[in-house]
Amino acid sequence: MENFIEKLSEAQKQELERQYAIYSNGVQEIVPAHELKNKIAKSLFTNQPLKIKLGLDPSAPDVHLGHTVVLNKLKQFQENGHTIQLIIGDFTGKIGDPTGKSVARKQLTDEEVKHNAKTYFEQFGKILDMEKVELYYNSKWLSPLNLEDIINLAASITVARLLERNDFSERLATGKPISLHEFFYPLMQGYDSVMLESDIELGGNDQHFNVLMGRHLQEYFGKEKQVVVLLPLLEGLDGVEKMSKSKGNYIGVDEAPHEMYGKTMSIQDEMMGKYFDLVTDFSLAEKNEIKEKLESGTLHPRDAKMLLGRTIVRMYHGEEASIHAEEHFKTVFQKGILPTDIPEVTWTGEESVPVIDLLVQLDLQKSKGEARKMIQNGGVKINGEKVEDLHLLLAIEDKMIVQVGKRKFVRIKK
Amino acid sequence: MENFIEKLSEAQKQELERQYAIYSNGVQEIVPAHELKNKIAKSLFTNQPLKIKLGLDPSAPDVHLGHTVVLNKLKQFQENGHTIQLIIGDFTGKIGDPTGKSVARKQLTDEEVKHNAKTYFEQFGKILDMEKVELYYNSKWLSPLNLEDIINLAASITVARLLERNDFSERLATGKPISLHEFFYPLMQGYDSVMLESDIELGGNDQHFNVLMGRHLQEYFGKEKQVVVLLPLLEGLDGVEKMSKSKGNYIGVDEAPHEMYGKTMSIQDEMMGKYFDLVTDFSLAEKNEIKEKLESGTLHPRDAKMLLGRTIVRMYHGEEASIHAEEHFKTVFQKGILPTDIPEVTWTGEESVPVIDLLVQLDLQKSKGEARKMIQNGGVKINGEKVEDLHLLLAIEDKMIVQVGKRKFVRIKK
Repeated sequence: MENFIEKLSEAQKQELERQYAIYSNGVQEIVPAHELKNKIAKSLFTNQPLKIKLGLDPSAPDVHLGHTVVLNKLKQFQENGHTIQLIIGDFTGKIGDPTGKSVARKQLTDEEVKHNAKTYFEQFGKILDMEKVELYYNSKWLSPLNLEDIINLAASITVARLLERNDFSERLATGKPISLHEFFYPLMQGYDSVMLESDIELGGNDQHFNVLMGRHLQEYFGKEKQVVVLLPLLEGLDGVEKMSKSKGNYIGVDEAPHEMYGKTMSIQDEMMGKYFDLVTDFSLAEKNEIKEKLESGTLHPRDAKMLLGRTIVRMYHGEEASIHAEEHFKTVFQKGILPTDIPEVTWTGEESVPVIDLLVQLDLQKSKGEARKMIQNGGVKINGEKVEDLHLLLAIEDKMIVQVGKRKFVRIKK
Repeated sequence: MENFIEKLSEAQKQELERQYAIYSNGVQEIVPAHELKNKIAKSLFTNQPLKIKLGLDPSAPDVHLGHTVVLNKLKQFQENGHTIQLIIGDFTGKIGDPTGKSVARKQLTDEEVKHNAKTYFEQFGKILDMEKVELYYNSKWLSPLNLEDIINLAASITVARLLERNDFSERLATGKPISLHEFFYPLMQGYDSVMLESDIELGGNDQHFNVLMGRHLQEYFGKEKQVVVLLPLLEGLDGVEKMSKSKGNYIGVDEAPHEMYGKTMSIQDEMMGKYFDLVTDFSLAEKNEIKEKLESGTLHPRDAKMLLGRTIVRMYHGEEASIHAEEHFKTVFQKGILPTDIPEVTWTGEESVPVIDLLVQLDLQKSKGEARKMIQNGGVKINGEKVEDLHLLLAIEDKMIVQVGKRKFVRIKK
């Protein structure tokens, strides 16, 4: 790639530095950083937008704040006029895992893929301007590949290089099987970049190997190499593990405002800076100001966290919902009194019910097992009184208030 | 596979044992032996021929005795009514090696593949009844495979299993690159067995891994598994290395009778038993008789070797040529006199010529370098006198006899 930086005017050079500061803020790694500058320079010099790629797994369309780290970064590129290329990995989705070993990679029908893509679209629309986004299904170019094409593709990479991927080398070393077809997933992902001539690919830090494959394959096929921007992984509410739905430590972008606000308030203080950086839409200057105030003690951590909660709710539900969610939180948790908008449920069941059954029937707990645990942990109250007997038989009364955890309430109507 | 052996009549069981004794004679390994018996039993019980597969590399059509080891085994199956499936690996031939690293695997055109197949056919016709042979080009089923098919194929095998192949594990251990596409060659070879539903695949002992892949893939695709019959590798004239054209230690099936006979006479005594076993058309009883006579001393090794020479020439050039070749050999080498059929060359060159140039101009040596070595080794005679001076300037005379090595003569006409 030729050097565009040296061709820029002084004003363009300033614009280059401005954009670079935005894009490089809060990232884990840029491979390589000087090429990102040159890509921006190319865009400024040729007056053409850059193509920014993000690949999506069509089997997991529930978007949570962990995903928004990369979406917020995409948004920065979009706000500066660059083109977002979203790729639904439907080819992989439709073939599933032929060995049937991976539950996550079950075979999807065309309808499921379309449905999941739509779900992505709706959720992404809360962050990105979806009218300007380019959407691709990679089955378009992967399905027609024949054995000769694939032999050519496979010839681009050595087995040793593939075994450098952490999970592969680990599995080989510990005798856990790697099916040969698994070697093809990074190649397919990389081939997407060849077909779309992406300038930049974004990914979570755990996608390091896969997104670099795009760079490798573009070079092999004589294309300009993409720059790889790796984003940090966001720890979930537990502050330890990567946010994920399966671990239950997530805040979904589709969750109700007061749920979202309440979960945010449960984040550990030390994580707050990272959350401000990665999941809010504050400018770089604003983020720095908050961090400075926190350090100097002029901003109380509780107030900062409430700002974070308001901001997250505002981003996904709007200003009004965010104020309401904060009020709700203050009422329930800070003042220790009941909220005013407790949902009412008309009781049509037995006159008296074991408390465990009641919780499940009211949909406050998913299973008897969970209900039992919640009682044992002291998380269940009837009319404000903690339930301590697992086998308590309750006589159902009108206006009875059942509370589970800090935020779930039901008022019984009889 | 169900047990057919127990369904056979006594007469059929005897026939089974007869065929098994023939097929198992002189082989390196049968994987697994009891299944070979059951395959023969199936054929006898159902009165259907077995399908016996041999894969051929379309890039190396010069057939030498090393190849005939497996062809002779095929012939035994053919003589008992089974069907030979010859597969020209034209798919691999036509794509070549995309990395361009393997000279042996250069890309072949359709014409070259066809030409090479024809060459095989002509040469194989000296051993097999080619009218009964089924010929296949594997591009027919490999070319149309798409990425989904290939992912399915690749899912059948683990990386660890592929790395068990000696050359792969060695290369990985020593840091020599293995391109991913190389993993596909054994899979493709195995897929041929799936498509052709082969009962038995033959191969040299160095093909162990590749031919077993057919067995593995047939099982994966729900077919009856083939039995693998591995033949020993034939050492060449040097008695050390595998016979191969590139090593110059071979006897080609297309070579002239007296060349073939002479080369056979240069085989080391210890190799003779193996040659009788692997490259002659003697029956098992005849082979055993020869070996016994050699051991008891009632057959002189020289006479045995002459019988071997006559037999090989007879197999490829007929009875008359074999007798003539033996006569030629006796005349030249055993009696120490000149043969009667020395080719005459009319000399049109200079009056006097350096001996090295003469050898090259008469086509007795390919290069001056080789001519020089031959003189240094004492292998050049002019009119029966050994040439000792590398720079000898010869005055060319009518009827001058130039001899190179033991078997090349030219009489100059002037």
